[in-house]
Amino acid sequence: GLCRCIVLIYPPFLSRDLTFGCAVDITGTLEKSINKRQNVELHAQHIKVVGECNPVDFPFKIKERHSLEYVRQFPHLRCRTNAFSSLLRIRSEATTAIQSFFRDNGYVQIHTPVITSNDCEGAGELFQVEPAGHKNDSDDPNPHFFSVPAYLTVSGQLHLEVMAGAFSAVYTFGPTFRAENSQSRRHLAEFYMVEAEIAFTESLDDLMKVMEDLFKAATEHVLSCCAEDVELFHKYIAPGHRDQVDLMLKRKFNVISYTEAIDILKSSSQNFTFSTEWGCDLQTEHEKFLVKHCGNVPVFVINYPYELKPFYARDNQDQPNHTAAAVDLLVPGVGELCGGSLREERLELLRQRLSIFVIDRYLQLREFGSVPHGGFGMGFERYLQCILGLHNIKDVIPFARFSHSCLL
Amino acid sequence: GLCRCIVLIYPPFLSRDLTFGCAVDITGTLEKSINKRQNVELHAQHIKVVGECNPVDFPFKIKERHSLEYVRQFPHLRCRTNAFSSLLRIRSEATTAIQSFFRDNGYVQIHTPVITSNDCEGAGELFQVEPAGHKNDSDDPNPHFFSVPAYLTVSGQLHLEVMAGAFSAVYTFGPTFRAENSQSRRHLAEFYMVEAEIAFTESLDDLMKVMEDLFKAATEHVLSCCAEDVELFHKYIAPGHRDQVDLMLKRKFNVISYTEAIDILKSSSQNFTFSTEWGCDLQTEHEKFLVKHCGNVPVFVINYPYELKPFYARDNQDQPNHTAAAVDLLVPGVGELCGGSLREERLELLRQRLSIFVIDRYLQLREFGSVPHGGFGMGFERYLQCILGLHNIKDVIPFARFSHSCLL
Repeated sequence: GLCRCIVLIYPPFLSRDLTFGCAVDITGTLEKSINKRQNVELHAQHIKVVGECNPVDFPFKIKERHSLEYVRQFPHLRCRTNAFSSLLRIRSEATTAIQSFFRDNGYVQIHTPVITSNDCEGAGELFQVEPAGHKNDSDDPNPHFFSVPAYLTVSGQLHLEVMAGAFSAVYTFGPTFRAENSQSRRHLAEFYMVEAEIAFTESLDDLMKVMEDLFKAATEHVLSCCAEDVELFHKYIAPGHRDQVDLMLKRKFNVISYTEAIDILKSSSQNFTFSTEWGCDLQTEHEKFLVKHCGNVPVFVINYPYELKPFYARDNQDQPNHTAAAVDLLVPGVGELCGGSLREERLELLRQRLSIFVIDRYLQLREFGSVPHGGFGMGFERYLQCILGLHNIKDVIPFARFSHSCLL
Repeated sequence: GLCRCIVLIYPPFLSRDLTFGCAVDITGTLEKSINKRQNVELHAQHIKVVGECNPVDFPFKIKERHSLEYVRQFPHLRCRTNAFSSLLRIRSEATTAIQSFFRDNGYVQIHTPVITSNDCEGAGELFQVEPAGHKNDSDDPNPHFFSVPAYLTVSGQLHLEVMAGAFSAVYTFGPTFRAENSQSRRHLAEFYMVEAEIAFTESLDDLMKVMEDLFKAATEHVLSCCAEDVELFHKYIAPGHRDQVDLMLKRKFNVISYTEAIDILKSSSQNFTFSTEWGCDLQTEHEKFLVKHCGNVPVFVINYPYELKPFYARDNQDQPNHTAAAVDLLVPGVGELCGGSLREERLELLRQRLSIFVIDRYLQLREFGSVPHGGFGMGFERYLQCILGLHNIKDVIPFARFSHSCLL
């Protein structure tokens, strides 16, 4: 845990250089503190200011509480505020928690590539990569560094599917990218995803169990290893959020089908901006309503319309409502936290759907010992927002990158 | 550890579909095996081929040993070979080992950004990032997605230096990039680096201790947790390499100054291609010689010529040979495994050197409570090559990216 220390400085050692924000080297006697607010106290016998700090220029002021918005303007200094240093310790520990969860359950961690020649989702908003100074010259017979256009990954799923042909279970945890032209509190151009892929999985129940277990195990770990850091958020920044977190941990997550979700939305008295007809995608307003409807306990929505889901989602081959075996996990405050599906392992069905996108190597995986498999992804920043009660995604990442902003 | 299983199939269950590479679902009784080559044996009572595999088309053949070069051509299938699946398990476990080492020693893990607006090393070969379809139009008043040119990181050091102002010790472990036009066995466009930064460090000895402890702790962990996987490499691919690894673990690493290194090279009888005059950079041939000279035990070379090192390396202010407090760790087979330095924490010295590169925020870190600090980076792929005895860096990463190659 965190060790809080107070330094007691007696008059002979007080000096003008000893300002808020300066770096000091202190020698003295360390004693257990009687005061509850700190564990130990250091009675200074020698003090040296190793790095001065002009309190007029330093953007943070002693004993003042600065808003998250104000602090965000100083990406090189905000780690020195209490709230953001707590956040960074929590983020570090949550990373450990997630990796321990997978390791304890026999998963192999795969470093899926950042640079890729495929566009997993088939959905634009990709960043492209070329050496600096490269000219987009259409006369050049081979204009690309990698011979082909190369992008920043939007998901490690296809690479994990490759690995699911060799290991029973694999995961990746790393940065993913969207060139989304948005400065909203929900979007980043670079964010972290946890993705898992499991071989010999034939039911969404198996996937949902992993997602729920992961969420609960990681959260229990963070609450116990970072108790004081988490308390800062639950006490000063999102008061009352601890009860919400405890509720999510205590209760079994709900499961409803997409069709049931549509029925719930249709029979509600709320006026939605977006359509609630069967076949329409669920929007944030719908997700929030569904979570509230489920008593603020996370809810899995399963079996989405086939046409809404990407080519790799497994066809349920049902009628009259044609669905795919896909699942989203919706959580309070955030909306969609995880998305997953069984993957189409049947070569002939995949070939029919992939008429446009021909990805030879992806099809070959189904040709040589294909196994039923499935997986999911969880947005790591959304996870942190969900357990800490933070509204802006920029407050849970060390250096935020978004449209028109890439400081440092 | 790994569980090896043999399946015993009796004639009634043998079928044509049961080919090398197919995926099967088997029910039977599991028994402890008497044979040492496997732990358990499964006596099949029911067999179902869930994914067929045409052995004529499948690139790997039963009971044949394929070369690493051959296997490399199939990035979507090579994880199914014994050697590469062992490598991936080792890589996963080495990742855990490194993260545990830092966590146990009180480091906070920081996710340093992939996309950055600064060029840490000041050394070209950067990848630039823009949305796909973006035109390099010089008439456009704001031609960049991030408003400024943005690159893929070559090092997380500057971001870690920011964090060293808030935490005693931080580290990052993630992908880094070089747009190097090379297809050599030593280069990748995307590779992993472990980087650490430690506050209140005033001596290279402290940094060297961390590097040596990290190397030894991670290697002990891998050797004990992946004994059988490591054995595959030490037995079949790099015979005799285990002795080299044991030697590195047993012996204290050597420390020599750059000036001593130059003296050693000059007094050797070997003819080097590159100059061995004081002031010249050490080349691979020099590094190899020095490691051999030190009995194949890793060697730290310290205090390099000031002019050879980047702006952030701390000035030793010595004469007549002007040096910087920088260190490289050289290891057998690989050459430079780690590079580090004390960082220049003195604002006035940094300002003098940074006349060209003005990085305001970097300078501000020295203005507001600057602390003496230092850090280092370790190439993760080189580390794996070093402990496994592998010559080609492409054989230690799941999906290799290099000039003209970005498969999948």
